[in-house]
Amino acid sequence: MTSPIDPVALTADLVRCPSVTPAEGGALVLLEGVLTEAGFTCTRVDRGGVPNLFARWGTRGANRSFGFNGHTDVVPVGDAAAWTQDPFGAKVVDGWMYGRGTTDMKSGVAAFVAAAVDFVRDTPPDGAVILTITGDEEGVGVDGTMALLDWMAGQGERMTHCLVGEPTCPNDMGEMMKIGRRGSMTAFITATGVQGHSAYPHRAKNPMSALVRLLSRLEEKPLDQGSAHFDASTLAITTIDCGNPANNVIPARGSATVNIRFNDLHTGESLTRWLQDHAQAVAQETGVQIDLRVQISGESFLTPPGDFSALIAHAVQAITGRTPVASTSGGTSDARFVKNHCPVVEFGLVGKTMHQVDERVEVAQIHQLKTIYTRILQDYFA
Amino acid sequence: MTSPIDPVALTADLVRCPSVTPAEGGALVLLEGVLTEAGFTCTRVDRGGVPNLFARWGTRGANRSFGFNGHTDVVPVGDAAAWTQDPFGAKVVDGWMYGRGTTDMKSGVAAFVAAAVDFVRDTPPDGAVILTITGDEEGVGVDGTMALLDWMAGQGERMTHCLVGEPTCPNDMGEMMKIGRRGSMTAFITATGVQGHSAYPHRAKNPMSALVRLLSRLEEKPLDQGSAHFDASTLAITTIDCGNPANNVIPARGSATVNIRFNDLHTGESLTRWLQDHAQAVAQETGVQIDLRVQISGESFLTPPGDFSALIAHAVQAITGRTPVASTSGGTSDARFVKNHCPVVEFGLVGKTMHQVDERVEVAQIHQLKTIYTRILQDYFA
Ligand SMILES: [Zn+2]
Ligand SMILES: [Zn+2]
Repeated sequence: MTSPIDPVALTADLVRCPSVTPAEGGALVLLEGVLTEAGFTCTRVDRGGVPNLFARWGTRGANRSFGFNGHTDVVPVGDAAAWTQDPFGAKVVDGWMYGRGTTDMKSGVAAFVAAAVDFVRDTPPDGAVILTITGDEEGVGVDGTMALLDWMAGQGERMTHCLVGEPTCPNDMGEMMKIGRRGSMTAFITATGVQGHSAYPHRAKNPMSALVRLLSRLEEKPLDQGSAHFDASTLAITTIDCGNPANNVIPARGSATVNIRFNDLHTGESLTRWLQDHAQAVAQETGVQIDLRVQISGESFLTPPGDFSALIAHAVQAITGRTPVASTSGGTSDARFVKNHCPVVEFGLVGKTMHQVDERVEVAQIHQLKTIYTRILQDYFA
Repeated sequence: MTSPIDPVALTADLVRCPSVTPAEGGALVLLEGVLTEAGFTCTRVDRGGVPNLFARWGTRGANRSFGFNGHTDVVPVGDAAAWTQDPFGAKVVDGWMYGRGTTDMKSGVAAFVAAAVDFVRDTPPDGAVILTITGDEEGVGVDGTMALLDWMAGQGERMTHCLVGEPTCPNDMGEMMKIGRRGSMTAFITATGVQGHSAYPHRAKNPMSALVRLLSRLEEKPLDQGSAHFDASTLAITTIDCGNPANNVIPARGSATVNIRFNDLHTGESLTRWLQDHAQAVAQETGVQIDLRVQISGESFLTPPGDFSALIAHAVQAITGRTPVASTSGGTSDARFVKNHCPVVEFGLVGKTMHQVDERVEVAQIHQLKTIYTRILQDYFA
């Protein structure tokens, strides 16, 4: 009988691959080797030059098919001189492994690969285990997990449920899982009026007055009061700028930026329409031209609490003693793509140092994460 | 019998004195000579290094004492290379005299000095004629006309009415006189909040939201609908600034500037209180600290239409054929000080090129202005 895979050693091997987006860095090649040897059918699904790995144990289109999703690419090192350890060294100091990707999310990938390999070997399930691992989550992302899902749809490959292994715990292992995320969008507003003398405002068209009127209306009422599983949507004015030093002059142009985090009561489209309606009304009232450029970073999504999230929560509780909160807070992840394919939940370890100098992970947490993922697989196929 | 004083030659002599504020440049010395020779009692009232000239014909404290007020200082030349003529040359080309101060307001001073000297010599009035001429109107102004008026009060010197000879006509000679001015003030507003992440506005205190709320309230209702002799007061947002480039960050600080032009329904003090009340309310509602720095450039004032303004208007009409509009428009002048001493009206020639490169005056207008000032003296003492 083969000995179990050590997720800490696997994490270290992955950290030593310099897979800064979009470089593959050897990380997917390494995983493909491990998984192939363990009896997984592996396919590299590269699209637009982006490296992606699909791996399945069991039969295609099985009734019960558990999926893991993750990424091996990492953000750049940043200020290399500020690191106390080699960012690609994976050195362990006082129980912590240092390196770019140690929390986000090579440890997560190593933990689910190790769990999956040991699980199918020790207790072969009645169903399939599928791993989708991308080399482009930190970048643009359109040829990463999305490419894998598109390819799967074409091949008749499917997951019935999926767990994304991103770090989800703010401070303590086990305290939080994510069942959705708010959407995020930014509106860049430019107001162009007619310059004039401060003493004669009626001869000018003041872009700053128009912006104040518009922004004041956008902030007048809360967007909503929150929904069943989401906090209230929020709107924040992040800047207003003009740069006119002359207080006897009404300027010709000004700009403002607004960032909106929205729940499942809205969409990027409905909010864009809402912004446009207000901008148009103010433009008509003031004669000031108002231009909107909207950038939608992600729509909101939710996997409603149910059997699947209960199964995850139960496994986490069994191993850590903590019942994870089902949260929809935080930024975006590839779960926003997976949710179009099957129910998706995210659970991983503590992400505190992700994207920072001296990113590091507690070695014990990697072992614990593999144990949790194993328990999830056991319960899922029980 | 002495021949009449040529106001054009006197203007040219004054223009050749380089009396850029605060330099006396020989201008007041020249006038003191002319007036002393004509029988005026002259006193240099210099305060804080600023040169000022007081001149009286007739007895001190006379029941009827007509005053003229003006200034000999001029603003800097500006882009000297852009002038087509020597800014201190007073050269006449095609009927126009070129030079700094030709319109603002050495021609006005020359015209009223010439009118006063000829008038008291040819038809000695039953009363006094007083000239107050400062060398600091374009600068800070506190030791200019104000010093003259303070000194006069101490000496028992008084004018019963005063005409300020500033250029008042926008385009055509005779079309406008000023019987008052709106006040002007600027408020510099700084908002200091607490920085935070755009996704969690409730954890931050957004200074831009506080500014938008405050400015929106200031612009909510017009300050007034105008008064008998004044246009409505106006408020203009001249800039809002923050400079935050990160749309996932709520900034810690922002600023805005507001300029107010106000009529006789307000004072600088009442408006400062109004601004402070609104700022305080918004600060309390938002938790954002709001600091106000207020700069009052001048209060509003008015010489209500009556015998005096009618006399001026009649003289202007008799000489130019145009009935001057009694306006309260435009910026500030030393009339704002004189109004505390006696009724004051402003009338002068066309000011179109004042403060500009190639400032120039139509020579014929200088003659016409002397004729108008002479007619005013005749009618006043008739
Ligand atoms: Zn990640
Ligand atoms: Zn002037």
